[in-house]
Amino acid sequence: MQTMKPHLGGISQECRDAMQTKINGLAKPVGGLGKLEAMAVRIAGIEQTTNLRTKHRCCLVFAADHGVERAGVSATPRKVTWQQAINTLAGHTTVAALAKANNCDVKVIDVGVDYDLSGTGVIDKKIVMGTKNMVNEPAMTRDEAVQSIRAGYNVAQQAIAAGNDLLLVGELGMGNTTPASAIISVILGVPAEEVVGRGSIISDKRLAHKTAVVNQAIRDWQPDATDAVDVLAKVGGFEIGAKVGAMICAAENKTPLILDGFISYSAAVLAERLVPGITDYLVASHFSREIGSQKALNWLGLTPLLDLNMAVGEGSGAVISLGLIDSMQSILENMNTLAELDIRYVK
Amino acid sequence: MQTMKPHLGGISQECRDAMQTKINGLAKPVGGLGKLEAMAVRIAGIEQTTNLRTKHRCCLVFAADHGVERAGVSATPRKVTWQQAINTLAGHTTVAALAKANNCDVKVIDVGVDYDLSGTGVIDKKIVMGTKNMVNEPAMTRDEAVQSIRAGYNVAQQAIAAGNDLLLVGELGMGNTTPASAIISVILGVPAEEVVGRGSIISDKRLAHKTAVVNQAIRDWQPDATDAVDVLAKVGGFEIGAKVGAMICAAENKTPLILDGFISYSAAVLAERLVPGITDYLVASHFSREIGSQKALNWLGLTPLLDLNMAVGEGSGAVISLGLIDSMQSILENMNTLAELDIRYVK
Repeated sequence: MQTMKPHLGGISQECRDAMQTKINGLAKPVGGLGKLEAMAVRIAGIEQTTNLRTKHRCCLVFAADHGVERAGVSATPRKVTWQQAINTLAGHTTVAALAKANNCDVKVIDVGVDYDLSGTGVIDKKIVMGTKNMVNEPAMTRDEAVQSIRAGYNVAQQAIAAGNDLLLVGELGMGNTTPASAIISVILGVPAEEVVGRGSIISDKRLAHKTAVVNQAIRDWQPDATDAVDVLAKVGGFEIGAKVGAMICAAENKTPLILDGFISYSAAVLAERLVPGITDYLVASHFSREIGSQKALNWLGLTPLLDLNMAVGEGSGAVISLGLIDSMQSILENMNTLAELDIRYVK
Repeated sequence: MQTMKPHLGGISQECRDAMQTKINGLAKPVGGLGKLEAMAVRIAGIEQTTNLRTKHRCCLVFAADHGVERAGVSATPRKVTWQQAINTLAGHTTVAALAKANNCDVKVIDVGVDYDLSGTGVIDKKIVMGTKNMVNEPAMTRDEAVQSIRAGYNVAQQAIAAGNDLLLVGELGMGNTTPASAIISVILGVPAEEVVGRGSIISDKRLAHKTAVVNQAIRDWQPDATDAVDVLAKVGGFEIGAKVGAMICAAENKTPLILDGFISYSAAVLAERLVPGITDYLVASHFSREIGSQKALNWLGLTPLLDLNMAVGEGSGAVISLGLIDSMQSILENMNTLAELDIRYVK
């Protein structure tokens, strides 16, 4: 990463138009493939071709722990982060199982797990053993925030160099809906109450506490909404920063990056603040059921392909959307055109 | 098919409960897989097992022509029915392309196409060369309606005997959103205006004409809403009757049947009227964008997995949902349990 403010080449409107024309020429009702058409047009604009490259794909699962987990915001204990990092590589987590069914490679990257994962196959980009507790102090230093972005950028660069056509981002980090909510609250300028949700299912009492924690951290550390790195440092998380870096790298390389759920939305919000227009290079896979999702997606201007009422994280929604991409790819490769059949519609 | 009023063995509540318990035990937030969980529970109840059988599946594409197409209700010419029947077997239609991407067998069955398809590989169950024009006379005789149901039943029986775990239903029949709308209007007792849509994209003027055609046919032939066969005969279509037969056969054999879009909904509405409770054996794949879809699905009590704003028909939505079923199957087969990880959530 040369700079935090890369110059993006821009989306090809010509390829978008050409793809829509190609789809309109297929022997099916015009517009009949709905969101699949919009997705194909989007990828065509990013990749600058109507021959979409989608076969090789890799889900980057960034893992890190969160000081704020100590403040009792989550239903899930901290140790689950490192356990699931290892279990993902063994093929036993949700994202791993879905990757198996959807022909997707998976990498797990430690950017701040509170456990020694050396020798496990997890890629070591550890910054420190988790963020600080934002109840007591900012989550990380500005330098650590930049490091996390660089870590994600570098891992994405390797994945692209290895020949991946699509990048997906997922995460492991118990407690991470708290920083994600805080980031979205600050950048969008909406009250924490509107974006703090139940994560992995918490009680009303714990939800109220989680909301108070987010409000207090924003009040105490005053993150500057115009400065994405400041927001990431004060109320963010390392895996969120790493996702921002992966997004920058993907956009620079005209590689579509498929978002997962709520944690991804928070990273996309930061990335868009850092590099205006970068959202054009992102593909929204599924609509997370976290309550802040609609606001974040509206702000980004993204419409997800799927709405399965899922809230697992890890990259699960991103990976499951690959089946739709493969389906559309098969349509583009196998279908007859209206011209071949000499069909004319008479509206 | 011994009788039009088969005795269904019933859904296993025990297997549904056992499947939900199994899913709740997986190492992910409770309920985190949303609609995928509900789908797996549904299939468990139908198949009476928590080891779902989903690997072998076949899409039955029933093809037939419609007299009412002569009344100018469709944007698509009649010849497209036979053309696409052949093109489906050659792998060049939407449903064929999707089947290739989703490991699904496809059979095309002629139950009333206005063309000689012998020697093409299309299964010959032709009743006559298309229905009558419901503007001038009832679409078919009561005997022909029963024949179409039997044809679908017999084809489904062969597909199940061949070892298929899941049946999917699709259709080819230019003009068939008109009979589908008429059926739904009659059985649900709602005005045609609320269920007649644009099919393969028609103008406002043609939509008004189509609505008038449906209203007139219902007024002239007075289909008896309490008698599904009478409704099918007077304002239906052969491929719709065949789908009803396939649904009866699937339910008798505890085989999940995956609906496609609007034409499937109309067949399900008829099947439910004929065999109350049969809807419990059906799985809704996608939400068709035809305007009558929500009313039909509400009446059936079904919630589709996907909402991609699609309106192609052929079985396309049913086949594309297989990716989600495969994804859930992989989760059930590969994931760790909470007990294995000794994780306890504290809400």
